Amino acid sequence: MTSSPLLAQISLLMNEKIPFHKLIGLEVTRFASDISEVQFKWKEELIGNAPQGILHGGVLATALDMCGGLVAIASVIETMDHSAQPHEVIERISRCGTIDLRVDYVRPGRGETFITTAHIIRSGNKVAVARMELHNQEGMLIAFGTGTYMVG
Amino acid sequence: MTSSPLLAQISLLMNEKIPFHKLIGLEVTRFASDISEVQFKWKEELIGNAPQGILHGGVLATALDMCGGLVAIASVIETMDHSAQPHEVIERISRCGTIDLRVDYVRPGRGETFITTAHIIRSGNKVAVARMELHNQEGMLIAFGTGTYMVG
Amino acid sequence: MTSSPLLAQISLLMNEKIPFHKLIGLEVTRFASDISEVQFKWKEELIGNAPQGILHGGVLATALDMCGGLVAIASVIETMDHSAQPHEVIERISRCGTIDLRVDYVRPGRGETFITTAHIIRSGNKVAVARMELHNQEGMLIAFGTGTYMVG
Amino acid sequence: MTSSPLLAQISLLMNEKIPFHKLIGLEVTRFASDISEVQFKWKEELIGNAPQGILHGGVLATALDMCGGLVAIASVIETMDHSAQPHEVIERISRCGTIDLRVDYVRPGRGETFITTAHIIRSGNKVAVARMELHNQEGMLIAFGTGTYMVG
Repeated sequence: MTSSPLLAQISLLMNEKIPFHKLIGLEVTRFASDISEVQFKWKEELIGNAPQGILHGGVLATALDMCGGLVAIASVIETMDHSAQPHEVIERISRCGTIDLRVDYVRPGRGETFITTAHIIRSGNKVAVARMELHNQEGMLIAFGTGTYMVG
Repeated sequence: MTSSPLLAQISLLMNEKIPFHKLIGLEVTRFASDISEVQFKWKEELIGNAPQGILHGGVLATALDMCGGLVAIASVIETMDHSAQPHEVIERISRCGTIDLRVDYVRPGRGETFITTAHIIRSGNKVAVARMELHNQEGMLIAFGTGTYMVG
Repeated sequence: MTSSPLLAQISLLMNEKIPFHKLIGLEVTRFASDISEVQFKWKEELIGNAPQGILHGGVLATALDMCGGLVAIASVIETMDHSAQPHEVIERISRCGTIDLRVDYVRPGRGETFITTAHIIRSGNKVAVARMELHNQEGMLIAFGTGTYMVG
Repeated sequence: MTSSPLLAQISLLMNEKIPFHKLIGLEVTRFASDISEVQFKWKEELIGNAPQGILHGGVLATALDMCGGLVAIASVIETMDHSAQPHEVIERISRCGTIDLRVDYVRPGRGETFITTAHIIRSGNKVAVARMELHNQEGMLIAFGTGTYMVG
């Protein structure tokens, strides 16, 4: 979990104040400058392949994008002046955004709980690159991806 | 436009029977072997950047992935024997899936209606590649992408 | 062709002073802020699939990357102060670089002359995105791609 | 290292009979169904950024593509009947090809020796997906990527 109160506050924001995260049920479960983790639970509304009952690729893309964005944001916060006020941090974060995203689908999205992790690969003051993986509760790799984020 | 009753039937399936399409509000508005089109309307639940009120990148990825998948499916159906029964077509489609997806985010997702179009670039009996674009109702390009699909 | 003496000078640099461009035989044939073009001729040394005698995918990736980089550079130069000295422009260009590249291979690389074109899709003061296509002399699409470039 | 005489024979083919590999100086140093490795040495002709003296992104893309292709080929050979004749294996391999490639450039290409490794992530009888990394002799990550390959 997050060690600092600021990261904890942002986690809460991500879980509670981003409508599309709530719609899917995405929850930040880890949030640090080198690794972040996002989880969600299987539910009927997330199905994309009805005959086979598997998750929509867009759900997986959303989880990967969110998770990569989180670790990019955390890497940015780490470089900010420690005396920065929360509203300054929020303002900086709101200017961050995904430049591009690649998702590779490895196995059908089946399971009960899905765990997405992201690692920072390139951390700069303008652009950050993260690598993400999504497993189910049995540790099966379902999808992975790479995201390039504007951070400054 | 869909010329055949079969494509019309599949469009209906895509709109009505795929839970995640309904959750977002994605609707097939064109479905042919060379071009497909998907539309959705702005709604609060799709927001990803709350301070700025713009669509979540995952929503755009979902629309692009769906639209590319549609044109890939249509290109497959075109190659099938015309005497194929609907259940054979459905069975074949249910085995199709996204291999990988790249999304490039060009402008913030703002607008009232979002129109996604997909063109088939490579059509084979095993793999199809589609190129997709997403504009808002004013014709502004918001995102584009490329999808590689397993079709056989 | 390039209208300005500065762009003409940079074209010459790209053709003559970049060793890997000379090794492959890549030549700038158009260089403007909205579109750039690069050509090269078939030669034995560029083969990647010997039994079938087709170009190596790395040759195509190189041409696409170079062409996208050119249009990104041209879009940057356009935004620079017109009183900027050549050495300032060169210095700025030398800091540009590819962040990521996606290449889609559509058909085997067969032909005599290969023409790569790039269009700028997103032009910013930090990051530029270009879309590229590579055809042979008969107009057959062989590969296409997208490149994200650091420009500031 | 290659355990079988067949893989050793293919390594030799890759090093000696693919003109573009020879032009760059790419050499197979490991070739198995789960991991492959390719190395090359710095040389003047591979420079892409002359003012800064760093490798061309196309060189890195070529090494990554080749290395991913190798591990995809090895994963295919593993599934073939052990009584398959060398010419059957060669014939099968010559039909393999890259569908798409994503390269992420992390650091400038500086060093003396460059080591590319590839792991197989998805292995099928039609499509294989590999993840690749390129480090210099000091272990610095310079680029990484993902390749999707047609294998059947």
